[in-house]
Amino acid sequence: MNFEEIRTACCDANRRLSKMGLVDITFGNVSIYSPDVKVFAIKPSGVDYDQLTPESMVVMNLAGELVDGDHRPSSDTPTHCYLYNQWGAQGVHSVVHTHSRKAVSFAQAGMGVPCLGTTHSDYFNGSVPVTRSMTPEEVIGQYEWETGKVIAESFLEMDPLEVPAVLVRNHGPFAWGATPEKALETALALEVVADMAAQTLALNSIVAPVPEHLQHKHFFRKHGSHAYYGQK
Amino acid sequence: MNFEEIRTACCDANRRLSKMGLVDITFGNVSIYSPDVKVFAIKPSGVDYDQLTPESMVVMNLAGELVDGDHRPSSDTPTHCYLYNQWGAQGVHSVVHTHSRKAVSFAQAGMGVPCLGTTHSDYFNGSVPVTRSMTPEEVIGQYEWETGKVIAESFLEMDPLEVPAVLVRNHGPFAWGATPEKALETALALEVVADMAAQTLALNSIVAPVPEHLQHKHFFRKHGSHAYYGQK
Amino acid sequence: MNFEEIRTACCDANRRLSKMGLVDITFGNVSIYSPDVKVFAIKPSGVDYDQLTPESMVVMNLAGELVDGDHRPSSDTPTHCYLYNQWGAQGVHSVVHTHSRKAVSFAQAGMGVPCLGTTHSDYFNGSVPVTRSMTPEEVIGQYEWETGKVIAESFLEMDPLEVPAVLVRNHGPFAWGATPEKALETALALEVVADMAAQTLALNSIVAPVPEHLQHKHFFRKHGSHAYYGQK
Amino acid sequence: MNFEEIRTACCDANRRLSKMGLVDITFGNVSIYSPDVKVFAIKPSGVDYDQLTPESMVVMNLAGELVDGDHRPSSDTPTHCYLYNQWGAQGVHSVVHTHSRKAVSFAQAGMGVPCLGTTHSDYFNGSVPVTRSMTPEEVIGQYEWETGKVIAESFLEMDPLEVPAVLVRNHGPFAWGATPEKALETALALEVVADMAAQTLALNSIVAPVPEHLQHKHFFRKHGSHAYYGQK
Repeated sequence: MNFEEIRTACCDANRRLSKMGLVDITFGNVSIYSPDVKVFAIKPSGVDYDQLTPESMVVMNLAGELVDGDHRPSSDTPTHCYLYNQWGAQGVHSVVHTHSRKAVSFAQAGMGVPCLGTTHSDYFNGSVPVTRSMTPEEVIGQYEWETGKVIAESFLEMDPLEVPAVLVRNHGPFAWGATPEKALETALALEVVADMAAQTLALNSIVAPVPEHLQHKHFFRKHGSHAYYGQK
Repeated sequence: MNFEEIRTACCDANRRLSKMGLVDITFGNVSIYSPDVKVFAIKPSGVDYDQLTPESMVVMNLAGELVDGDHRPSSDTPTHCYLYNQWGAQGVHSVVHTHSRKAVSFAQAGMGVPCLGTTHSDYFNGSVPVTRSMTPEEVIGQYEWETGKVIAESFLEMDPLEVPAVLVRNHGPFAWGATPEKALETALALEVVADMAAQTLALNSIVAPVPEHLQHKHFFRKHGSHAYYGQK
Repeated sequence: MNFEEIRTACCDANRRLSKMGLVDITFGNVSIYSPDVKVFAIKPSGVDYDQLTPESMVVMNLAGELVDGDHRPSSDTPTHCYLYNQWGAQGVHSVVHTHSRKAVSFAQAGMGVPCLGTTHSDYFNGSVPVTRSMTPEEVIGQYEWETGKVIAESFLEMDPLEVPAVLVRNHGPFAWGATPEKALETALALEVVADMAAQTLALNSIVAPVPEHLQHKHFFRKHGSHAYYGQK
Repeated sequence: MNFEEIRTACCDANRRLSKMGLVDITFGNVSIYSPDVKVFAIKPSGVDYDQLTPESMVVMNLAGELVDGDHRPSSDTPTHCYLYNQWGAQGVHSVVHTHSRKAVSFAQAGMGVPCLGTTHSDYFNGSVPVTRSMTPEEVIGQYEWETGKVIAESFLEMDPLEVPAVLVRNHGPFAWGATPEKALETALALEVVADMAAQTLALNSIVAPVPEHLQHKHFFRKHGSHAYYGQK
C-alpha cells in the first residue's frame, strides 16, 4: 500500500465506524498499518466523521513520527503505535478504538467481559480482559504510549488474535484484526456481547462462564484450519 | 413449491429478518420446508444479508444432504434439519434462528422466559423453555444435529405449536411456525417479551407468572377454533 | 363529526401511533368518540398499520353494536366502549391502548408508575395506577368489558382527566384525552416516564415520590385555569 | 449580534437539539446570550420543534423582560435568565435544558453523575452535581427563577466552565457553554456519561470514581492552555 491507498482505506474505515452505532460525538478512531512500508494511517484529532477526507488522514511511522499529512493525529495515536510495534509482525494490521457504551461500562466497572455464550465464543476465545489501573506516573508521563504498554501486559499469556480486544480500565475498548473490516466487526461484536453479558448478569448474578468445550467449539468452527463457517 | 419458489421465498425471509432488528452482524438465519417435496431451503453460511440472492440459497433434504445449490449452507443447518424431521409433519414449515439480544440474555442466564403477561400469552401458551446443558460429547460430536435433539427433548410434554420457540442454553433462540411470516413474527414477539420480562424482573424479582386463566384467555383468543382475534 | 370524518380521523390516529415507537407488531389501537352522535370509531382487529384505510375502520355505538363498517373491530373494543360510557360525558373522547414496553413492565410487575419527577407531573397529577387482578370469572366471562370495569374501579377517587392513563395488571397501558392528539401524546409521555422511573429505581430503590408542592406546581402550570405553559 | 442574528442562531440550535435524540415531545429548550447587547433569545413555550422559525423566538433582557417577539417564551426562561445574570460575564453564552432520560433518572434518584471514566473526564472535571431539594416556598413562589438560584448554589465552590452542567433534583439537566454548539455537545455528553454510569453501577455498585490523576489528564488534554486534543 502506498500513502494514497492507506489514507483512502483509513478514511473509509473511520467513516464506516461512525455509521455502526459505536460512536458518540467524536469518541472513536481507526488506524490501518501497512507492514511492507511499516507506517500506519490514523484519523486526525477531533474532526467530525462527515468532514473526513483521505487528505486529512495522518501517516505515522513506528517511531511515532509524522511521516505524511498536515493535521494533528488522534491523541490516541501513541497507543495504536505501541500495538503495531508489538503485534504488527503477528498480523495485527488495524486497530479500532471506541467509547461504545456497554463496553465502556465494563471498563468503568473494572471488569472484563466474561464469556457467557456462543456469540462471544464466535469472536473471542475466552473473556475479554480489562487492563490494570495505570499508575500516576504512567498517566502524567507518556500517557497514551503507556496505555499501549498496559494493554500488551494483559496479553503476556494470551494470543492477541484469539482474543482480539481489550478494555482499558476506566476508559474503553480497543479491538484489532488483520484488516480494518475485521477489526471493525470485532469492535461491534464486543459491544454486542458486552450488552448481552450485562443483561445476563442482571438476570443471574452468579452465572458461570460458558463450558470450555462449547467455547472452543464455537471459536474454532470460525477460526483456524478446522473452521467450517462461511464460504470457502 | 419447486426449488425456484422455495429459494425465492427463503431469500425474501432472510432479507426480512435482517430488517427486523433481530440480527447483529450475520447472526441469524431462516429456513423454509416444503412438505410435498420434503426439502428445505436455508441461508448460505456467513454471507451478508444484502448480498443474498435466490440462487445463493441452499436446498437440503431431510437426510441432511445438499440437493441443490453451490454455496455452503448455514453451519446451523443440521439443527433446522432435525426439527423438520421431528415436527415437519405436524406443521412446522419454517424455522428462524437469531442471536437477538434479550432472548440470548435469558439463554445465557440459563433461564426460560417466564409468562408474565398478555403479550407473552398472545404468542406462547406458557413459558418459553431453555434447553439443558449439552454434554462435552454432544458438543464435540455432531454438535448442530445434537442441538436439534436437545431442543426436541424440551418438548416431550409440550406441543411445539403452542409454544413455538425455545432458548438453546448459552446460545440463543429458535422460533418456528407454519409459514416464514409466522415464524419471523414469533421470533420478534419472543424478543419483545424477553425484553419486557427482564425489565419486569428488575422491578419485581419475585413476580409470579400470569394466572393461568388469563394466559389461556389470551392464547386461545388468537389460536385454535375459538379464536376471535383478527379478520375472518 | 359524521362517519366519514370519524373514520378518517381514526385511521390517521392509528397510523400516527405506529410511527411513535410505542407499538410492536400489531399490539395497539386508538379509538375516537363523537359525543354528538354517541359513536366511536376503532381500528379493525389484527390489521397491519400500513394497510389501514378510513374504510377499514369500524364504527360502534355505546351499546357495543357495530354501526358501520365491514371489518371486525379490535378485540379490545368493549374496553374502549366501557370507558366512553363511563367518561365520555366528562370529556374523554379518545382512548389509546398499547403494549409499550416500559409501561407493560410496570403492569407485569404489578406496580403503578410512581411520580418521581417533573416530567411525570407535567402529565399526571400523581402516580399512574395499576388495576387489581381480574378474577377467573371476569376473565372467562365478558373479559374485555370487565377490563373496562376494573379500570373505572381504579378511578373511583381520582379524576380520569388529572391522571389520564392506567396500567391494566399483567397486560398494559390505556391512555385517554379530549382529542386523539392529546391521548397519543399522553400514551407517549407514559412510556417515557415509565422508562425514567424504572431507571431511577435501579439507581435508588428507596427513592421517595416527588414532593407534592412540586408535583402540583408542574401539573397546574400546564393544566387548568392557572396554566402558563404554551401559547395563548 | 443583532436581534435577527440571535433569533436565527437560536432557532437553529433548538432545531438541532430536537435531532440529537435528547428530547421527547417538547421537553427541551436552548437559549443564546449576546454579551454585547445583554439580551438572550429563547424558544417559545410549547411549540413543536419543526414549527420553529426565527420570528417565533423570543428575545429577553437580563431583567427578565420581553424585549422583542410576539410569542410567550419557554416557561423555563427565568432559569436561563438567572444563569446569564450569574455567569454571562464569565463566558456562559448558551444554556440547554432537556429532559434526556438517563440524566433525568439520576436527577430523580437524587444523585449526581459520578465521574467513573475518561468519557466523563473529557467534558466534566469532576462529578456533575445534583441540586438540593427546593423548599415549598421556592416552588410556590418565583419557581423558575428560584431554580436558577439553587443551580448557582451548587457552584459556589466549583467553576461552571469546568463542570458545565447540573441536574436539578426531581427535574432534569441543564448544560451550558461559550457557544450553542458547545452547550449542545455538552448536553449530549452528559446523557452519554449518565447512561454509562448507570450501567457501570448496575455491574458494580461499589465502584470508585476515576483516580484524580486520570480525571485531570483527560480534562486538561482537551481544555485550557495545555490542551493537545483537536486541530490547532
